[in-house]
Amino acid sequence: MYRLYYHPICPYSRKVRVHLSAKDTSFELVNENFWERKKEFIAMNPAGTMPILFDNSNGVSVSCSSAIIEYIEEKHNESKNYLGDSFVKRSEARRLQDWFDHKFYNEITRHVLNERYLSRFLPGSHSPNSDVLRIARKNLEVHFKYIEFLLENRKYLAGDQISVADFSAASHISVLDYFGDINWHHFQVAKEWYSLIKSHKIFSEVLKDRIPNLTPPEWYSKLDF
Amino acid sequence: MYRLYYHPICPYSRKVRVHLSAKDTSFELVNENFWERKKEFIAMNPAGTMPILFDNSNGVSVSCSSAIIEYIEEKHNESKNYLGDSFVKRSEARRLQDWFDHKFYNEITRHVLNERYLSRFLPGSHSPNSDVLRIARKNLEVHFKYIEFLLENRKYLAGDQISVADFSAASHISVLDYFGDINWHHFQVAKEWYSLIKSHKIFSEVLKDRIPNLTPPEWYSKLDF
Repeated sequence: MYRLYYHPICPYSRKVRVHLSAKDTSFELVNENFWERKKEFIAMNPAGTMPILFDNSNGVSVSCSSAIIEYIEEKHNESKNYLGDSFVKRSEARRLQDWFDHKFYNEITRHVLNERYLSRFLPGSHSPNSDVLRIARKNLEVHFKYIEFLLENRKYLAGDQISVADFSAASHISVLDYFGDINWHHFQVAKEWYSLIKSHKIFSEVLKDRIPNLTPPEWYSKLDF
Repeated sequence: MYRLYYHPICPYSRKVRVHLSAKDTSFELVNENFWERKKEFIAMNPAGTMPILFDNSNGVSVSCSSAIIEYIEEKHNESKNYLGDSFVKRSEARRLQDWFDHKFYNEITRHVLNERYLSRFLPGSHSPNSDVLRIARKNLEVHFKYIEFLLENRKYLAGDQISVADFSAASHISVLDYFGDINWHHFQVAKEWYSLIKSHKIFSEVLKDRIPNLTPPEWYSKLDF
């Protein structure tokens, strides 16, 4: 049994939650407003990042989302490995997980989250900066092209099996989609892949979450969008 | 036999090189000026990051430094695991590796590298911005405090055995030290730990590298500094 300190708009929280479901583990979610930087939260993870996994079986807290995923895979190694079934495949899934968790995040998600959501809670709150959002949208086009390049020869991002690379990419994309920041008409191949990911129950569960006072577009949790 | 596309001032290149030596693998280094973004280099790693590992035994290229380390550990699993000997220990080494590779890098190494080195090769070259360097030095104090906190109950950063967490931290720190940006008198406990890391042959080899037209301070590769 695990406890996952979690926030519904955090892409890393979403990724780990999807992975915990895929591995068929039992876990409870604890909602944490990470920007408040509560004392107990920082004590568990001095980096202040989300999510944190607490393992009831041994009292261990694990933070850093990619370290949580490795922990779960190593502890539950009897079931399907969502990094891949060989070390070569796992290296590709890890590379792409890192791509979305860092490159995609720094070039897109971070800006959208700051402008559309976090700025409300932080000192000096302001309305969304349209210049920043325009640059994020430009960057998104480049990343969607890369996704489409990968999908030329693959069913999923890292190969023929769904993997943590898909969990990470779809988590970041779903956060942008919550704010209505994706024009899906421009990205047909990526749209088909995202629809496939949405059709997995482990992912559709995450899309049921709602942020207080913030309604996503009507297509957000639909398979047909 | 491996080929490591490498740059001597890149902390991620240093970390992977130290790890390859620790695992007693045979490898050759290929110097790559990553800021030139050569076509063949980008084809191997579209993220454009360093280093890249080419595995001669199967023709596979691996990029993303943490994915390279997992690849090497999985492929050479008969020798000591430098992530740790249990999944709980490995989760701590992975968390700290991530800390230095991302948090430390973004708050310190990135700025020092940009101001002291990369700005020479990029369009719009300028002399180092002293405000940026002062902030990086302030941030370094906070990180050294965290290192000293970890070392209160540990011989190495992630526990009683040297690990990838030490390789990552010492690689970033050695880059700052090359530019003379660390005042060691202020950080006695961290200094003792860094001296211990320097005493390992796998690490001292890396400190023999010199960047053309840039001499490090006299203490840079000495155990007594």
